[in-house]
Amino acid sequence: MKIAYFVPGPLSRGPLGPDELVRREAFLNQHAFEGTDVEVRETASGPASVESAVEEYLSVPGLIEATPRLEAEGFDAIIVGCFGDPGLAAARELVDIPVIGPGQAAGHVAAQLGLRFAVLTVVDEVVPSIWRQMRQHGLDGFIADVRAVDVPVLELRERAEEVLETLEAEALQSLARGADAFVLGCMTMGFVDVARTLEARIGLPVVNPVLASLKSAETLAALGHSSSRGAYPTPRKKAAATRVHSATAG
Amino acid sequence: MKIAYFVPGPLSRGPLGPDELVRREAFLNQHAFEGTDVEVRETASGPASVESAVEEYLSVPGLIEATPRLEAEGFDAIIVGCFGDPGLAAARELVDIPVIGPGQAAGHVAAQLGLRFAVLTVVDEVVPSIWRQMRQHGLDGFIADVRAVDVPVLELRERAEEVLETLEAEALQSLARGADAFVLGCMTMGFVDVARTLEARIGLPVVNPVLASLKSAETLAALGHSSSRGAYPTPRKKAAATRVHSATAG
Amino acid sequence: MKIAYFVPGPLSRGPLGPDELVRREAFLNQHAFEGTDVEVRETASGPASVESAVEEYLSVPGLIEATPRLEAEGFDAIIVGCFGDPGLAAARELVDIPVIGPGQAAGHVAAQLGLRFAVLTVVDEVVPSIWRQMRQHGLDGFIADVRAVDVPVLELRERAEEVLETLEAEALQSLARGADAFVLGCMTMGFVDVARTLEARIGLPVVNPVLASLKSAETLAALGHSSSRGAYPTPRKKAAATRVHSATAG
Amino acid sequence: MKIAYFVPGPLSRGPLGPDELVRREAFLNQHAFEGTDVEVRETASGPASVESAVEEYLSVPGLIEATPRLEAEGFDAIIVGCFGDPGLAAARELVDIPVIGPGQAAGHVAAQLGLRFAVLTVVDEVVPSIWRQMRQHGLDGFIADVRAVDVPVLELRERAEEVLETLEAEALQSLARGADAFVLGCMTMGFVDVARTLEARIGLPVVNPVLASLKSAETLAALGHSSSRGAYPTPRKKAAATRVHSATAG
Amino acid sequence: MKIAYFVPGPLSRGPLGPDELVRREAFLNQHAFEGTDVEVRETASGPASVESAVEEYLSVPGLIEATPRLEAEGFDAIIVGCFGDPGLAAARELVDIPVIGPGQAAGHVAAQLGLRFAVLTVVDEVVPSIWRQMRQHGLDGFIADVRAVDVPVLELRERAEEVLETLEAEALQSLARGADAFVLGCMTMGFVDVARTLEARIGLPVVNPVLASLKSAETLAALGHSSSRGAYPTPRKKAAATRVHSATAG
Amino acid sequence: MKIAYFVPGPLSRGPLGPDELVRREAFLNQHAFEGTDVEVRETASGPASVESAVEEYLSVPGLIEATPRLEAEGFDAIIVGCFGDPGLAAARELVDIPVIGPGQAAGHVAAQLGLRFAVLTVVDEVVPSIWRQMRQHGLDGFIADVRAVDVPVLELRERAEEVLETLEAEALQSLARGADAFVLGCMTMGFVDVARTLEARIGLPVVNPVLASLKSAETLAALGHSSSRGAYPTPRKKAAATRVHSATAG
Repeated sequence: MKIAYFVPGPLSRGPLGPDELVRREAFLNQHAFEGTDVEVRETASGPASVESAVEEYLSVPGLIEATPRLEAEGFDAIIVGCFGDPGLAAARELVDIPVIGPGQAAGHVAAQLGLRFAVLTVVDEVVPSIWRQMRQHGLDGFIADVRAVDVPVLELRERAEEVLETLEAEALQSLARGADAFVLGCMTMGFVDVARTLEARIGLPVVNPVLASLKSAETLAALGHSSSRGAYPTPRKKAAATRVHSATAG
Repeated sequence: MKIAYFVPGPLSRGPLGPDELVRREAFLNQHAFEGTDVEVRETASGPASVESAVEEYLSVPGLIEATPRLEAEGFDAIIVGCFGDPGLAAARELVDIPVIGPGQAAGHVAAQLGLRFAVLTVVDEVVPSIWRQMRQHGLDGFIADVRAVDVPVLELRERAEEVLETLEAEALQSLARGADAFVLGCMTMGFVDVARTLEARIGLPVVNPVLASLKSAETLAALGHSSSRGAYPTPRKKAAATRVHSATAG
Repeated sequence: MKIAYFVPGPLSRGPLGPDELVRREAFLNQHAFEGTDVEVRETASGPASVESAVEEYLSVPGLIEATPRLEAEGFDAIIVGCFGDPGLAAARELVDIPVIGPGQAAGHVAAQLGLRFAVLTVVDEVVPSIWRQMRQHGLDGFIADVRAVDVPVLELRERAEEVLETLEAEALQSLARGADAFVLGCMTMGFVDVARTLEARIGLPVVNPVLASLKSAETLAALGHSSSRGAYPTPRKKAAATRVHSATAG
Repeated sequence: MKIAYFVPGPLSRGPLGPDELVRREAFLNQHAFEGTDVEVRETASGPASVESAVEEYLSVPGLIEATPRLEAEGFDAIIVGCFGDPGLAAARELVDIPVIGPGQAAGHVAAQLGLRFAVLTVVDEVVPSIWRQMRQHGLDGFIADVRAVDVPVLELRERAEEVLETLEAEALQSLARGADAFVLGCMTMGFVDVARTLEARIGLPVVNPVLASLKSAETLAALGHSSSRGAYPTPRKKAAATRVHSATAG
Repeated sequence: MKIAYFVPGPLSRGPLGPDELVRREAFLNQHAFEGTDVEVRETASGPASVESAVEEYLSVPGLIEATPRLEAEGFDAIIVGCFGDPGLAAARELVDIPVIGPGQAAGHVAAQLGLRFAVLTVVDEVVPSIWRQMRQHGLDGFIADVRAVDVPVLELRERAEEVLETLEAEALQSLARGADAFVLGCMTMGFVDVARTLEARIGLPVVNPVLASLKSAETLAALGHSSSRGAYPTPRKKAAATRVHSATAG
Repeated sequence: MKIAYFVPGPLSRGPLGPDELVRREAFLNQHAFEGTDVEVRETASGPASVESAVEEYLSVPGLIEATPRLEAEGFDAIIVGCFGDPGLAAARELVDIPVIGPGQAAGHVAAQLGLRFAVLTVVDEVVPSIWRQMRQHGLDGFIADVRAVDVPVLELRERAEEVLETLEAEALQSLARGADAFVLGCMTMGFVDVARTLEARIGLPVVNPVLASLKSAETLAALGHSSSRGAYPTPRKKAAATRVHSATAG
């Protein structure tokens, strides 16, 4: 099974550098089932990191361009490498392999572990986007809280210990609002791998969206399901659309 | 009051030609309150028409690029010229003037006219996108049905009579599912101006999303409200984001 | 366009005196679009102010009596001059022009500005009525909180500064419960015109129900919509009903 | 235990005549628990029957006037004699004894018998009012359907057999929409006593709102509960309100 | 009317002893309507008390075994003697008389007294079970809070004063979360009879689930309703099922 | 990774015989990821098949007894071998390894493939149980329909072709009610392996609950999550509970 983890932006050109792609690919393969091979891809277009609805949208044309190519390359599933699931519906329209949204996947895992979960994310600016995302996925009934640690994505790795302490403090706030499980609301948080430590500290499940989306990809690919064409129809102008986009991006 | 109606694609280069922009501007100004001046703008990037989630997303970078410019030009409100409200949250993050989503505006008008409305749109492919859109806006509790006439956007004008007949037939189906009001789910349908005729034929309100968004823009601009920064925060990297986008689009 | 703002009680005979009607009419016309003429009417029956469900209901017979008369006089829309929308459904059944409920109109404006709004009203006694009202309108999913400043309606004008301070304190409480926009839950509050000041102080939208209902009236009248007969059917005994009422009130 | 069944209109002066009051009182006492005494009262004001939102509202001043008097007379509970529960919240604000809304009471009984019930009522005009009523009570999640037999209230008794046949036909329609229990949506239907026959014919529970409200009154009076003052606060101007009303009705 | 109150465990063999059955039967009959006779039954199988989902499920086989027997004995209704309503759906499938779930019955009473109620129960371990129970009954929209006093069931009687004080403190916490009515979430709490005292102290309704289920049983038996076969169908293998169970329990 | 698939009844003693256990174990291992070993277990207590709420409940004591033993044997996850998830909450309370409910797991898979799914199950008698189950899991918002093929569990294998045809016919009915994905609502249906064929025939995803629960077990075990103790607390009387049960079952 071949899974593409697609970063919808030029991650390697940012402060984390090309090593970050290698680190992410290693992390993913280390947690994959035997027989699964994950490749990390990025796109030259798109934002350096996603910390607003603006950046979510700017990351989508790269995903749309890449998705059919990844299918043609023989991947069995694609993970959209951003917690906000930007462009998820569009990507699903374009291919016959499963496309995984990490926010959606992590939410569905958390909803099986407890009654109501809290999303703990990076910066306050994405909190309302996460509420809109969960509403759109029909998952808002499972949400007790959405909170942020107020650390930008690109500083998460270097400020990991501080992030962990703030996550713990925010998690306690969410407990008081009825949360009994947690979802980390950022893929970089997932790769920094604080979920496990936080889970140990607070004694409640903390879902890592990186791993939730990896397992969801392996699950759907193994089951042979692709997205429902009733919910994600093939665009009438599929070819044209891609052409227009090439023009746009050209 | 100056309102920008922004078409997120190269409408004038499509089959409807440059005259369509003129027609739309005339239609909008004809229905505007005294003292309101509407200008129609388009973008060279973006799809020719929006009939899928793919095309919705491809229309957003043009909107993101244009929004701050339109604010700088002195517009008092911006209407996103697509029923699906593509990029609405992103545009709202970027400016201090109201940005109107026609689907959202029309839904809120319809919800004041009846108990449950049906959206009647162009092609089956956008039906699930409209359900997702209404879920995201928290409006799905007001929806009785979403149906399509199966006529592509760019053929609506020339097939207007057929469209009207199909709309009436579909509306009757929606009545049986509990609808007591209707929303046309496509801006081109709105400009073809079938809402009034359909309303007369079926004897129930039919909301034209073009006019609903115009009135919503006039309302919010007159009231001096801009979007809540609690729901649409200014992106931390606002300047950077725009810069990245320029790079992307360049 | 001629709009009737109907006060469902003998406002001019109360402590605010006949000048209050003049002040309200001036305020409305000052905020109306060019070409709109608003007239304020009151009724001799009905309560002096509305601060309970009891008073809401007692204000309705006067509205029912007046509504067909206002339509006959040539008004294009009627605003029910009470935030609680008392008798809204009844008034809509009786006429073919739009009847605006300020609570409903303000709620739909706020729902376009943020994700969840709080209603800030006068006295604690109306808080549960506002919850019931928003449930009935299908708007409760948008509500984060309903709070009161504990100042009676008829003292709002003279205690305006105190009201403003309390509003700000209550708004902060609502922020902590997830509100990102606000609606003032009383028409007299709207006429005292504290919304703008409060909005400036807290930096988030504060919807004035007086202006929201005015703009909603102008919108629906301009669009030519009347209430759906599917949701507000003409009473079988329309004439009789009016007659019975005359008997009742006589 | 003394229970007042209050008809909010001049029933005895209508086509059913003064005997109808006697018949209703007999029916209620025949179904009451031992030790319960039910008295039927009516008001001279108010509509002859309730078949619209207009008439619902016109029936409320009489109820508001009567409620404190009935409490003073020593009744242990009051039943509002109309399925639409007109003025329920107002009446609850005014007294310390339970006030029963038949629509609410019947809905809560039906919700314990099945998963989703249908309301079968008299005329199409009240169907949307029933939807609004159930939304306000928070019961809409239990509703599968609301349908009407298209027979006016005052003709129900004489056309009883026809009503029964139509009820059965409508019930079958509701079954197809997921109903597994039924509520008759009109008190006169309840007194005509078709619920039991319909239940026998279709083999599923059919709740008679007359009996549901009687049992709810007996239950709440026996338990010694009155309405929550958190939901139905005593009006600040309770005395004044009554005074204003006297003026109104005088 | 004969009502069976069925304790799904060997209560008489526990620390409260056989007298507790006598006390409970007396309490129930003391609060029953004239003409109602309540008998308390228990089962030798099942847990000593129910303070977890595990114990809820272990209490069900005894209920399933007893239910048809109680119907055969001529009872008109059966009350499941545990707030969590364990096995309610199963018992309803097996008989043609009403089977009452105290949690469901108490929730429907509370929903008629206020807008949102809080459940105050024994130990923290059952709080999530109560949330699941209320979700299953479709009552979660009426719930403001679920809290526990942290006193085990079998110590409630001896620690009654402490329980009352803690209940009052917890109730105040729930008030701040929007509760305006209360339900005691444990039958032993109901028999200790603290509801009335707590109601007097906090001035808001406190529903005793013992009495709510008694009145619900009397109501449904008097109305002649049994559970909807659409929601609780007779098992295809009804006889076999009972046989299998005998094997299981034998 | 070692996964226990626990059949909560004496399947091998029924008409399908001991071979069925072997067939099921083979089917599960054939679809497992490399490195996963699935063992099928059954219990001597419990019903032969589950086609009612009664049988669901009767299957739980065996599960409660087995669960801690399976954990002690070193299994990494347990699948409850019945679509109705009987006893799921109880089993989760008792162990620190994940316990998978097939109905819940399949629902969460389907919710990622489309907007609204239909459950297609065996007999009409379990349809309302599935609605209650989905309500309890918070998944009812994703459900468009629940329908049955009217073939008993134990005849599914021999009547496989007929089942397939009926499934297809029922699926078309559900499409008309808005379903865009399907879940087979019975584990025996899953083992008969009709999902794939049905999916091919109707062109929309058909989730096999056997495989969905297998993948969910592998996912949660791989991620190292156990159920939230906030939602599934360890019973205070864990040891006692087990003891009582032994007495019960003994």
